[in-house]
Amino acid sequence: MSLQLLKALPYLRTATGSLRSQIPRTTWSSHIASEAHAKVFLSTTTKATASAAASPPTQPQGSPVTWGTKKQKRKVNLRSAAAEFIMSNPEIAAQLAPLRERVQEQGNLVRDLKAKGAPEIDVKKAVAELKARKKVLEDKELALTPSVVSFDRAKMEDLLKRRFFYDQSFAIYGGITGQYDFGPMGCALKSNILALWRQYFALEEQMLEVDCSILTPEPVLKASGHVERFADLMVKDVKTGECFRLDHLIKQALEKLSKAKEATPALQAECEDIIIKLDGLNKQELADVLAKYNIKSPLTGNDLTEPIEFNLMFATQIGPTGLVKGFLRPETAQGIFVNFKRLLEFNQGKLPFAVAQIGNSFRNEISPRSGLIRVREFTMAEIEHFCDPSHKDHPKFGNVRSEKMTLYSACNQMDGKSASQVEIGEAVATKLVANETLGYYMARIQQFLLAIGIKSECLRFRQHMSNEMAHYACDCWDAEILTSYGWVECVGCADRSAYDLGQHTAATGVRLVAEKRLPAPKTVEVSEIVPNKQALGKTFKKEAKNITDALAKLSLEEIGKVEQQLAGDGSYKLTLSDGQTHDLGKDTISVKHSSKTVHVEEFIPSVVEPSFGIGRIMYALLEHSFQCRDGDEQRCYFTLPSLVAPIKCSILPLSNNADFQPYTQKLSSALTKAELSHKVDDSSGSIGRRYARTDEIAIPYGITVDFDTLKEPHTVTLRDRNTMKQVRVGLEEVVGVVKDLSTARTSWEQVAQKYPLFEQQEATK
Amino acid sequence: MSLQLLKALPYLRTATGSLRSQIPRTTWSSHIASEAHAKVFLSTTTKATASAAASPPTQPQGSPVTWGTKKQKRKVNLRSAAAEFIMSNPEIAAQLAPLRERVQEQGNLVRDLKAKGAPEIDVKKAVAELKARKKVLEDKELALTPSVVSFDRAKMEDLLKRRFFYDQSFAIYGGITGQYDFGPMGCALKSNILALWRQYFALEEQMLEVDCSILTPEPVLKASGHVERFADLMVKDVKTGECFRLDHLIKQALEKLSKAKEATPALQAECEDIIIKLDGLNKQELADVLAKYNIKSPLTGNDLTEPIEFNLMFATQIGPTGLVKGFLRPETAQGIFVNFKRLLEFNQGKLPFAVAQIGNSFRNEISPRSGLIRVREFTMAEIEHFCDPSHKDHPKFGNVRSEKMTLYSACNQMDGKSASQVEIGEAVATKLVANETLGYYMARIQQFLLAIGIKSECLRFRQHMSNEMAHYACDCWDAEILTSYGWVECVGCADRSAYDLGQHTAATGVRLVAEKRLPAPKTVEVSEIVPNKQALGKTFKKEAKNITDALAKLSLEEIGKVEQQLAGDGSYKLTLSDGQTHDLGKDTISVKHSSKTVHVEEFIPSVVEPSFGIGRIMYALLEHSFQCRDGDEQRCYFTLPSLVAPIKCSILPLSNNADFQPYTQKLSSALTKAELSHKVDDSSGSIGRRYARTDEIAIPYGITVDFDTLKEPHTVTLRDRNTMKQVRVGLEEVVGVVKDLSTARTSWEQVAQKYPLFEQQEATK
Repeated sequence: MSLQLLKALPYLRTATGSLRSQIPRTTWSSHIASEAHAKVFLSTTTKATASAAASPPTQPQGSPVTWGTKKQKRKVNLRSAAAEFIMSNPEIAAQLAPLRERVQEQGNLVRDLKAKGAPEIDVKKAVAELKARKKVLEDKELALTPSVVSFDRAKMEDLLKRRFFYDQSFAIYGGITGQYDFGPMGCALKSNILALWRQYFALEEQMLEVDCSILTPEPVLKASGHVERFADLMVKDVKTGECFRLDHLIKQALEKLSKAKEATPALQAECEDIIIKLDGLNKQELADVLAKYNIKSPLTGNDLTEPIEFNLMFATQIGPTGLVKGFLRPETAQGIFVNFKRLLEFNQGKLPFAVAQIGNSFRNEISPRSGLIRVREFTMAEIEHFCDPSHKDHPKFGNVRSEKMTLYSACNQMDGKSASQVEIGEAVATKLVANETLGYYMARIQQFLLAIGIKSECLRFRQHMSNEMAHYACDCWDAEILTSYGWVECVGCADRSAYDLGQHTAATGVRLVAEKRLPAPKTVEVSEIVPNKQALGKTFKKEAKNITDALAKLSLEEIGKVEQQLAGDGSYKLTLSDGQTHDLGKDTISVKHSSKTVHVEEFIPSVVEPSFGIGRIMYALLEHSFQCRDGDEQRCYFTLPSLVAPIKCSILPLSNNADFQPYTQKLSSALTKAELSHKVDDSSGSIGRRYARTDEIAIPYGITVDFDTLKEPHTVTLRDRNTMKQVRVGLEEVVGVVKDLSTARTSWEQVAQKYPLFEQQEATK
Repeated sequence: MSLQLLKALPYLRTATGSLRSQIPRTTWSSHIASEAHAKVFLSTTTKATASAAASPPTQPQGSPVTWGTKKQKRKVNLRSAAAEFIMSNPEIAAQLAPLRERVQEQGNLVRDLKAKGAPEIDVKKAVAELKARKKVLEDKELALTPSVVSFDRAKMEDLLKRRFFYDQSFAIYGGITGQYDFGPMGCALKSNILALWRQYFALEEQMLEVDCSILTPEPVLKASGHVERFADLMVKDVKTGECFRLDHLIKQALEKLSKAKEATPALQAECEDIIIKLDGLNKQELADVLAKYNIKSPLTGNDLTEPIEFNLMFATQIGPTGLVKGFLRPETAQGIFVNFKRLLEFNQGKLPFAVAQIGNSFRNEISPRSGLIRVREFTMAEIEHFCDPSHKDHPKFGNVRSEKMTLYSACNQMDGKSASQVEIGEAVATKLVANETLGYYMARIQQFLLAIGIKSECLRFRQHMSNEMAHYACDCWDAEILTSYGWVECVGCADRSAYDLGQHTAATGVRLVAEKRLPAPKTVEVSEIVPNKQALGKTFKKEAKNITDALAKLSLEEIGKVEQQLAGDGSYKLTLSDGQTHDLGKDTISVKHSSKTVHVEEFIPSVVEPSFGIGRIMYALLEHSFQCRDGDEQRCYFTLPSLVAPIKCSILPLSNNADFQPYTQKLSSALTKAELSHKVDDSSGSIGRRYARTDEIAIPYGITVDFDTLKEPHTVTLRDRNTMKQVRVGLEEVVGVVKDLSTARTSWEQVAQKYPLFEQQEATK
C-alpha cells in the first residue's frame, strides 16, 4: 500500500531533483536548497566593504585565494538586510521586474494546467520551466545584493582543521569522504547546541524524549518507503567500476562542453538550459542527455553504464544467519512512529503530545562533497508532534504570535516575488501557514536558531510548492540558512497528516491510533469475520494461525467482499502477506453482524514534524560567526555566543612567574565547581598571542592573572573576545560574573558598565 | 604485525571463554563476569525479609511469578555487606575453608608450571581447573550470603516495560533480539547518567572530548585485531540454517542430559565438570564435546555443522562501488587512537592528556539474551589517558588516596581468598595496583558509580589474572557490579601500554608518537634509504610512488638488511602491503649514513583506558534502586538519586478544581525556568494513586497544590519519594528547594528539619 501511495506522488521535492526527493518526508539532509545558484552568488563578490576593497587582504598561508578575479569561488559575501535593500531600491527592482514577470507568467500557467486537469506530463514540464525561471530570478537577486561582510571559506576551513573543530575521519588511513570526526572544539560546540536544543524543545515543551535503535530491520523501511524509493541515480565506468552521481556528472560535463573554445553560443545556451532544468529530469531524460552529448567517464574516458538507481541506505545483516536484512536508519523518525502505542500509553492516552529524539542517521551518498553539508553519518534532532487532525491549534501559540519571520511562500515563489517579513500570528490568521501548531514550531525553530547565533538576515522559511510537497502533507516549510554554499535547508517543518502511522498500521496490522470521546454515544453496525477454528485447524494445519491473523486484519470493505463471495460461490480467496493464497469455504468462516454502542471513536493522529540537521546548522553557525580582526587578516576568530561556545573561559597567567600559580589553580577549581568549561594556558608566548589562540577556538571570556592580582584586594582582568575590551574584577567575584555571562543572565555591555575598564597589563612587578 | 602479536597471546580473557576473549582489549560489553553462578545464587532466595516472608505477595498482573518454590529463578536477593558477613562468621568460614584450599593448591600449581616454563598446553589445563575451582568457591560464597533485600526481576521488568523505561525495538514488527528502544524515562535516566559522567570526567579532568565516526573502514579494524579475532564460535542446523552460539548450546544440552531420568551419577558429574570448564575449551575441544554427546539442534533435532568462527562486527559497504568494506565500530576507542596526532597537537604537544568519547558501538551477537546486559547496539563512554610510560604518577592522586575500595586481586583469586577492603593509596604503594594513574581512575570510577546510586556493597574491582591479561598490559581491573545475573563487568580499567598506537603506526606508517626533551643533547647515527626517483620512475612507472612510500616506512633494522643485501647480491626484494614484490637494484636505491644532534626523543605514549558500558551500569542501577513499599508488593518504585532521576519533580493539584490551575501553571513555568524536568499530573485519581504513579517512574519530589495553597501566605506540600514524608513550603520558595535537592546541594533530611512536617491534605475546602 505504501508503495502505491508513493508511486501516486507526481513529484515531491524540487531542488535536488534526485529520486530520493520522491520520498515523502522532509529530507533536509539530502538537500541543498539552491547549491547551483551559489556560484552566481559567489561570482559577485568583488565589491567588498569599503575598507576591504581599499586594502585587498594578504593571502593567508597555504590557502590560495585570488582576489577580484572571476575564479574566486571560495571568496564570498554574506548578505545583510538584503531583502529590505532589494525591496526598497527602485533601480534594482527595475532590473528584477522582467524576471519576476517571467516567473509569474509561468506560475499562472502551472495553476491553469492544474485547474484544467491537464496531463501529468504537461504539468511536470511546466513546473520544470517554472523552477528554471525561479532560479534565474533568485540568482539575479543574490547577485544584486550589496556585499556587507566578507567571508573566506578556505581561511575558515584552515582554522577549523588546524584547531581540530572537525576533520576527515580515518585520515591516517587515507580518509573516507563524507565522514568527519569532531575534535574537542567541534564536539563541545555540538554538545552545547544539543543541550540548548533539549532545553528549548524537550524541556520547555515537556516532550517525551526517546532513544531508539539505529539498526533497523527491512520491513520497517519498506513500510516507510525507503527501501523502494530512497535512491539516487548513478552511472558506472564500465571498465573500472568507478561510480558517479548522475546529475553531478552531467552538470560537470555540460559546463566543460560549454566552456570549450569550439562551443557555439547555441550549444552554450542549450547546455545552460539543461543544467538549470537538471533537477526536473527523470531517469530516461537523463539517459538521453548522456547519449546525446556522448558523456564518458571524466577520469578515464571510458564508456558509462545506463543510469542505475542506487539505494542510499547502508545495508547489513542482523544476527548470524544472514537472513535478517537490516539497514542503518536514514532518519530517526521511524523509531518514534513504531513506538507510538507505548508513547501514547505513557501519556495516559491523551493527545496532543510531542516526542523528541536526538541521534545519528546514515546515508550512503554516492559522492559526498560540500563538507559538513552532505555527509554519510550525521546527527539529527527530530520532533514528532502528534495531535488530533481536527484540533491543530496550540495552547502556547500566544507566546509567539508576534514573532517576525522571513517567509518565502509558495505563492511568492510562483509569482516571482521575494520573501517577505510577516508576523507568524498573521501568517496563521491568513492561512498562509496551515495551522497554529505548525506556526508555533516555525517560530520556536527561529528562536532557537537565533539563540545559538544564526544571523536573522540569513534565515528564511521557504514553503514547499504544491508540486514538491507529499500529497498527504497539508503544509511544509524549510528553515533555510544562507551560507557560502547558497541557501541550505537546515530544518524541515512539515505537517505530515496521518501518513506515517497509517503506513505502519497497514504493514503490521497494529492499529496506531488514538481515541476520543464522542459528544454523544452512538450505535454502530459491526461486521466481523468469525473463524471456525476447529475446521481451519483441520484443513490448514500450521497455516491456520496465519490465516486467522490475516482475517483479523481485513478492512470493513474487504469483509463486505468476503460476505458477497461466500454468498456467491461459497468460498473466499484469501491472500497472505507472503503471497500464498487459500480458499476458505463456508465451513471455515462466517460473517457476523451486530450493533454496538460506542462512546469513543478511533482516529489516526496527525503528525507535525520539525526535523533538525545538527551538522548543517553547526556549519552555518561557524560561517556566520567567522571573523578576522580589522587590519589583521591573520587573526581570525569565531563570535560564537557564550551559550554554545565550546569553552566558556580561559585563564591566562601573565607569565610563568610561580607566584601566579596558586591564583590560577584556585580559579580553575572554582570554575570547575561552577560547571564552567575552561582552559588554562600557562604556556610561554606573549599574552596577546595567547589571547589570539583562545579567540581562534571561540572562548568568549578570558581571565588574566597579573601582578595586580597578587596585591590586596586581589583582582583579575576579564576580557571579552568580541570587543577585546577588558575590565578589572575582584578575584572572588569573577567566576560568578563569567557564569552569568555564559548563561546569558547578563551581557558584556552590563559588565563593562559595572566594572572599571582596564587598558594594559603591567609587564613587570 | 598486529596479527602476529595477537597470535602470540596465549589467552587473554577467561570468563566467557569465547574466541573474542582473545581480542587484546577490555571487552566489558561482551562479558558477564560469572553468569553461570548466578543460578546457584538465585536458588537460595526463599528466605526473604521477615515482612515479605510473612505475607507472600499477590501476583502482579501478567507476570507469572511463583513464590517459595525451587523454580523461582527470577526471584533473587542482593547481598548487603556480604563480604564482611562471610569473613566474620566462623561457621561459614569453616564451610568455605576446604574450597579455598582447593583453589590455593591449584593456584600454586599454576605458578609452579609457569615458573618452570612448562608447555603452554599444560599451563592452560591447569588454569582451566583453577577457574573451575574458583567458580565452585564463589558460588558457595554467594549461596551462604544472607538474604537482606529481596529482589524480583520479573516484577521490575514488568514495571520497566509498563512505564516504558525501555522495551524491545520494533516490537510491532515482531521485534529484534538484542535491540532496545529507550522510552522517555530510560532516555532521561541515560542522559542524566551521561551528563554526570561528563561532569565527573570530561569537565573535572579537563579531558578532550571527541565524537568520531561509527562507520569504520576495514584496515583500521584489521590493525586493531578485530577483523581477525573478534569472533564467537557457533554451529548451524544443517537443514534450517538456524544458528546457535556453541558454548550456550553445549551448556543447555548437557544440563538437559544430566537431568534426564536415565542419567547416572557418573554422567551427571561428567556433564557438570564440562559445563564448569566450558569457558576454557578451544574450538577442537568443543567440537569433540559435540561429537561425544551427539548433540543435535534443540529446535529440530537436525545435525549441526562443525563449529564456525563468526565475526561479531556488522559489515557494510561504504560508497556505491561495493569495494570499500566497512564495519560498525565494535568500540569507540579506535576513533581516539587514529586521531592521536591531531589531539596531541591540540594539546600543544604536551603529555599527559586524556581524551573522552561517548557514543554507540555495535556487536552482532549470535544469540543475545540477559536483557540490557548483552545487546547488539550499546552506548559506551571511553577514556584514553595518554602518558609518558616512565611517568605514570598522577597529580591529583592525593585527592583520592584514602578512597576505600573492594579489591579482588589476582593473587586472592589464585589463593582462593575473598576480595578485601583496601585504601587505593595503599594498593598503589604496595604495587597491588600498578601505578597512580590507574589507581586514580579506579577511585574516580568508584566515586562516579556510587554517586549515581550503585550500592557500595555490590561493587568490587576484580584484577585480571596474568593468564587473562593481554601480554602488553601492565595491569587491568574491572569494576564488577552484583546483579541478579551475578557479578557483571561494567567498567574496565586497563593500563594498555603502547599497544594501540603501535598497531596503527605499524599499519599506516604514520608515527603516532610524542616527543620529550632529552636531559642533554646527544649525537646519533642515522641510516636512511635514498631512492633514485628518476631510475625508480623509469623502471616501475606508476608503482614507483608505492615503492618510495614503502621504503620510507622501513624500520632501522630493515634498512640494515637492505644495506647487506645491496652489498651482497646487489639487489633488495621489497614486499608491498598488497603482497607484490619488487627487486630493487643499486641503481634505484642506496643507503646513506649520517650523524645528527638530537635534543628530543620520540616515544610511543602509554594508554590507561577506563571504558564504561552505560547500558550495563544503568541496568545494575535500576536493580539496585528497585523497591516495593512495606506491606504492599504492588507499589513498586525506584530510589534513583535525584541527580540521575529522569524527572526531578511532579506537580499534583489535589483535585481538578479550577482554582488550582493558576498555581499549577505558575509552578510549571518556574520549574522550567530553573531547568528542572517535571511532570504535571492533573488527571483524576486519588492523590495517593498519583503519588504511586510518580514513584514508579522514580520522581524523587512531588509538589501538591491543595486548598491551603489558595490561602495567604500561599504554600504547597513537598513530598519525598523514599520516605513518603511531606513538608509544607512557601509557594515562592519551593522551586529553589527542589533545585537544591536535585543538584545535591541539600538533602531531604535538612529540608525536613527546616520546614514543618505535613500529615494529610484537606480533601475539601
